[in-house]
Amino acid sequence: MTSDSFSIGIDFGGTNLRLAAYTPAAGFLETIQMPTRLQAGRDAVVADMCAGIRKLLDRYSSKLALKGIAIGSPGPIELPEGRLRNLPNLPGFDGLELRAAVEQSVGTPVVVENDANVAALAECVAGKGKTLGIDTLCFLTLGTGVGGGIIFHGKIWDGLNGMAGEVGHINIWPDGVACGCGARGCLEPLASATGVRRRAKEMIAAGKSPALAALEKSNPEFTPRDVAGLASAGDRDAQTIFDEVGLALGRGLAALVNTLNLPLYVVGGGLSSSWNLFSPALFGELRYRSYVFRMTDPEKSDAARGTAAKTYVTLTELGPEAGLLGACILPFTVARNGA
Amino acid sequence: MTSDSFSIGIDFGGTNLRLAAYTPAAGFLETIQMPTRLQAGRDAVVADMCAGIRKLLDRYSSKLALKGIAIGSPGPIELPEGRLRNLPNLPGFDGLELRAAVEQSVGTPVVVENDANVAALAECVAGKGKTLGIDTLCFLTLGTGVGGGIIFHGKIWDGLNGMAGEVGHINIWPDGVACGCGARGCLEPLASATGVRRRAKEMIAAGKSPALAALEKSNPEFTPRDVAGLASAGDRDAQTIFDEVGLALGRGLAALVNTLNLPLYVVGGGLSSSWNLFSPALFGELRYRSYVFRMTDPEKSDAARGTAAKTYVTLTELGPEAGLLGACILPFTVARNGA
Repeated sequence: MTSDSFSIGIDFGGTNLRLAAYTPAAGFLETIQMPTRLQAGRDAVVADMCAGIRKLLDRYSSKLALKGIAIGSPGPIELPEGRLRNLPNLPGFDGLELRAAVEQSVGTPVVVENDANVAALAECVAGKGKTLGIDTLCFLTLGTGVGGGIIFHGKIWDGLNGMAGEVGHINIWPDGVACGCGARGCLEPLASATGVRRRAKEMIAAGKSPALAALEKSNPEFTPRDVAGLASAGDRDAQTIFDEVGLALGRGLAALVNTLNLPLYVVGGGLSSSWNLFSPALFGELRYRSYVFRMTDPEKSDAARGTAAKTYVTLTELGPEAGLLGACILPFTVARNGA
Repeated sequence: MTSDSFSIGIDFGGTNLRLAAYTPAAGFLETIQMPTRLQAGRDAVVADMCAGIRKLLDRYSSKLALKGIAIGSPGPIELPEGRLRNLPNLPGFDGLELRAAVEQSVGTPVVVENDANVAALAECVAGKGKTLGIDTLCFLTLGTGVGGGIIFHGKIWDGLNGMAGEVGHINIWPDGVACGCGARGCLEPLASATGVRRRAKEMIAAGKSPALAALEKSNPEFTPRDVAGLASAGDRDAQTIFDEVGLALGRGLAALVNTLNLPLYVVGGGLSSSWNLFSPALFGELRYRSYVFRMTDPEKSDAARGTAAKTYVTLTELGPEAGLLGACILPFTVARNGA
C-alpha cells in the first residue's frame, strides 16, 4: 500500500448511503452520508451515489492518485459484473447493472462487491485478522439477515459468480422456520435480529413469558437489544432466545470449521453486541459438532490439543464502519479472487 | 509439467498399500500393490512402504529426474507435518510421524496428504475438472465413511492444519444417527456404505421389507451394491435407502454450494456407482436448500438462469485409482495451499 494514492469506498445500504475517501496511512480522509432514497427509485439512488463519488474525486484527485473505487452492496450480486439480483430489502433493483451504471456516470472503473465480503476484508486487514496476524478468515455478520464473507490470504473469495459466503443459508433444522430463500431451517431466520424478534413474539404469544410480554406492551417495536437487556438482567426466557441463537451459530460454524479448517472465524453485525449472551451455547454446540475444532481449540492446553494449530472463533473488533472501511481497502488489495 | 521427471505416489489404504512411478506424459510407469500389514504394526507398514519406494527409485532414478514423492493417507492427518491422528480404521497409528519416518528411511523429502485430497486433485487434473476445463472443485468420496477434498485453482486446500474438506461431518439431522466423530446426524453415517447397510438392517429388523430380508438371509455380508441391485430391480424399500442417501447428500452439498459457490462438485467413492439411484433425491434437496444452485443450475435455460455461470454437480470420471493417481500428480503441482 502506498500513501500517495487514495481510494473511494461506498457502503450501499438499504437505509443509508455512505461514501469515504481513504488512504492506508491516514484512514478516512472524509466521509459523506445520505439517506438511500429507495422510494425515488434505482436511478435516483445511482445518481446520488455518483454525485458523492464526483464530489470526493473533485476534492482529492488533484492531490492524490486514484487507486480505485469500490462499492459494497447487499447481495445477491453477480460478480465481477456487479449485477444486482432480487435483493430482498431493495425491491425494484433486480437486474440493475450497478457497476456499469456507475462507471458510465463517473467515467472511471469501479469494483462492486458483496457488503459482507468487504466487511470481511476490513476485519482481515484492520480488525481481528490484523490483531492475530492471520490473513485467512470467515466473517459472519448478524443483522436483519445473516451474511458472510471468506478471505483467503488477504483476498476475498467471490466464488463462481459472487455468491460465496452465503453462510446464512446453511441448514440448521431441516424442518425449521421458513427462510426468505425458500427453504426451511436456515441459519438466517435463527441467528438474525429478525429471528430474535420472531422468537420473542412466539414466546409472548405462548403466554408464559411475562417479562417479554411487558417489554412488548411498553414498546411494540422492541429490538434485540431490549431482549438482551432482559436476558442480562436475569430473565430466563430472554436468555433462552440467545441460547438458541448460539446453538444455531455453533452448528453453522461447525459445518464451516469441518469443511474449511480456517484459522479464524469472526462474528460481527448488530446482534454480535450480545456475544456474551449467545457465545456459551455457540461454543458448546461447536465443540460437540466439530472434532476439527476440538483438535484445535485454543482453550485447551498445548498438551491436550496435541498440535500447535489453533482455531479462533471471536467477536469482531470493528464497529458499524466495517463495510465502508472494507470498500475503501478493496482497491488496495489484489485483484478479484474467484473461481 | 515435464516428461523428463517422474514422481512416486503411494496410496496408503487400510486394506492395500499401492505405489506407482509416474510421469505426466506416460501416466503410470509401474504399479506395486501389497496388503497393508496392520496386524504387524506401524513400523512394519512404514518399512513395506519404504521398500516399495526404494524399489521404484532404483528402477527409474537413473533414467529420469525425481520430481517428488507423495503419500495419500487416511485422515485425520496434521499437515504439513504428516502426523497421523486417531485414525478410526488404523488403530495403533495415532501420533505416527509418517512423513518424518519415510523421509528418514528413504533419505529424500516426502509430502503427505489426506487421501480424499489427493483424489480431489486427480479429479481436477485428470477427471471431471479436465473434461469441463474447471480447476476449482470439491470432491466427495462415499466409501466406508464420507471424505472430501477442496481444490482452488489446481491446488489442494489443506486449511490450517490439514483438516479441510471434512465434509462427512456437516450436520444433516441434528438428532440423527450417532457418528464416529462423537456427534449425531453427520453426513458420514447417512451417505456411506456403512450407512446403507445400517439402514437396510433397520428396515429388515422392522419386518416390512421382504426383499431386503431375503437378501440378508442369502448373504449376511450383503453390500450396498446388492441393495442397489434390488433397487434397480424395482424394490421400493431398497430405493428408499438410496433416496435417503441422496437427500442427505443434497443437504450437505447445499451447505457447500451456499458457502463456497464453487463451479464443480464431484461425487466419487464406491457408493457413487449407485449415482443413478440417489442423484434424483440429491438434486431435489439441493435445489430446495440452495438458491445459489437454483441461480446457476445447468439444467435451466440461459434465460431462466439469468447468468452464464453454471454450478456442476456430477459423478466422478475416475475409478478406484484416483487416490494413487492424485498422489503421483501432487509433486507436479504447486506447493501446499494452506492457511
